[in-house]
Amino acid sequence: MDRVFLGVDIGGTKCAVTLGTPDGAILDRLAMPTQAETGPAAIMERLISLAHELTASSGHPIAGIGISCGGPLDTRTGMVYSPPNLPGWEGIPVRSMFEDAFAGLPVVIENDANATAVAEWKWGAGRGARNMVYLTQGTGIGGGLILDGRLYRGTNDLAGEVGHQTILPEGPLCGCGKRGCLEALASGPAIARLARESLHYRRGQRLVELAGGRPADITARHVVEAAREGDSFSRAILEEAGTYMGIGLANIIQILNPERIVLGTIAVHAGDLILNAIRRTVAERAWERAYSVCEIVPAALGDRAQDLAAIAIIESAANDRR
Amino acid sequence: MDRVFLGVDIGGTKCAVTLGTPDGAILDRLAMPTQAETGPAAIMERLISLAHELTASSGHPIAGIGISCGGPLDTRTGMVYSPPNLPGWEGIPVRSMFEDAFAGLPVVIENDANATAVAEWKWGAGRGARNMVYLTQGTGIGGGLILDGRLYRGTNDLAGEVGHQTILPEGPLCGCGKRGCLEALASGPAIARLARESLHYRRGQRLVELAGGRPADITARHVVEAAREGDSFSRAILEEAGTYMGIGLANIIQILNPERIVLGTIAVHAGDLILNAIRRTVAERAWERAYSVCEIVPAALGDRAQDLAAIAIIESAANDRR
Repeated sequence: MDRVFLGVDIGGTKCAVTLGTPDGAILDRLAMPTQAETGPAAIMERLISLAHELTASSGHPIAGIGISCGGPLDTRTGMVYSPPNLPGWEGIPVRSMFEDAFAGLPVVIENDANATAVAEWKWGAGRGARNMVYLTQGTGIGGGLILDGRLYRGTNDLAGEVGHQTILPEGPLCGCGKRGCLEALASGPAIARLARESLHYRRGQRLVELAGGRPADITARHVVEAAREGDSFSRAILEEAGTYMGIGLANIIQILNPERIVLGTIAVHAGDLILNAIRRTVAERAWERAYSVCEIVPAALGDRAQDLAAIAIIESAANDRR
Repeated sequence: MDRVFLGVDIGGTKCAVTLGTPDGAILDRLAMPTQAETGPAAIMERLISLAHELTASSGHPIAGIGISCGGPLDTRTGMVYSPPNLPGWEGIPVRSMFEDAFAGLPVVIENDANATAVAEWKWGAGRGARNMVYLTQGTGIGGGLILDGRLYRGTNDLAGEVGHQTILPEGPLCGCGKRGCLEALASGPAIARLARESLHYRRGQRLVELAGGRPADITARHVVEAAREGDSFSRAILEEAGTYMGIGLANIIQILNPERIVLGTIAVHAGDLILNAIRRTVAERAWERAYSVCEIVPAALGDRAQDLAAIAIIESAANDRR
């Protein structure tokens, strides 16, 4: 057996600790509900206990720890600053709490979008690409950039916030407070809102049915499900969201000239129902010379992505730390 | 005397050869009109003669050659592919022609926006920045990216084409064939067009006067000149262009989280008359956490930029060549 890594995934609804190998095999795993309302101190205490429990059961010494957590956070100091899904985590020294609990072990922390980008690049749909952009299109739209063969973090760990580029200057207000962001037009909640607002003048019976007869309960999952069944109303909604995504990806292609764009979450579930509109719009909005070298593909790691993300950053961080 | 470099700048109206030092001092220079209509073979022959003339007069051996030329071009093969300002240059092996003419010397080629980015980063307004975006806002809007302390070229040398991100999806047609690009809204020609189109319903007498009484002859230079004099019509035009630039820069900040953005050409001439609108819009459109670490400044190299660009890429290319 080679070295063994400990991965820690901190999320708004659940946390998990994972034992994995440097080549991305998962050996063991424990999870717990976050219970965000109990606050950072209690959550960190339970999480560190869980990590001790997992590593005690492992027959192998741990070689390093990787923590994947919602941003904003500072990878140099290891401090976390109030991620949207972890209210009250303002200035929590997450990395040093793990350093104290596992004395002597190297600990790295990365925001979850960057960490997932590294995992998809090492073991998923980004494998072999020198320049890769990862985007998750779920509750929010975030991303991570692999440029010239390594993670690019930006000046204060905010690179890759591709969901908050302006697509429509006079568009709807975004959760971030800005107007017309990609996230306000093509995230899961944006797709659900678009569907609900369109019910008034288009036919969306199947969608209302899937939502148990309550239009207010329609989610992006329902839209994808109905579109898969052939519902033309839901297909049109995904086309519209895909068009906005396509504008955002075309901008990324013009600025970064990547060879691959990996799309998580909705693109994985909806496939060509959204990818066709994305690819068509990219062809309209980016230069042929640039988009012809760029594949747009769904993410490949599925449910394992979050666990692997925390494992993936360990070696990467050791390699390219400033 | 240290090593001496030969810089070659190939432009649509003039070409120049320069002797310079690795630390950016210019020792000597010869220039010639391009006469683009004479075609690539004749131009390259005259240019290589000019380079021989310059280097023969130098008392020092040449250590390397850098060529700055309009893109698209391929930095790996050294081929140039029909830059907009050099019609007919389709597949011209510019680098190997210089390699043949100066046997044994290392020759590198870079598109002019990337080369100017490196020059501003080494010796101009970008000095000391680890992550810097250079933008020229002139006839076109192009750019170059310095990320994690080195030039980022992208997959096939098209990174940094920031002028062709979509700002208004239903906006005016761009010279590149796409709709609503930043370049179609904020370049020199776009500013002139905006001024001409606005004459019908706003007062722009001073501008028409500067253009010799011929509205069709209004240029961005006239707009900047009138704005400097206090003409409110021209100031409003620059505000509008600055607002579009601000949206484009905010997108760049969200995606790349740079610590400095260096703006060439119009920002240098117009100063705060356009920078104020740019900075205000960035504050509205980018996250505080990201724009607060990013200075937006005018370029510093002025008329020397193009000569220094060709010199600047020589060492850089030697350092980070793939």
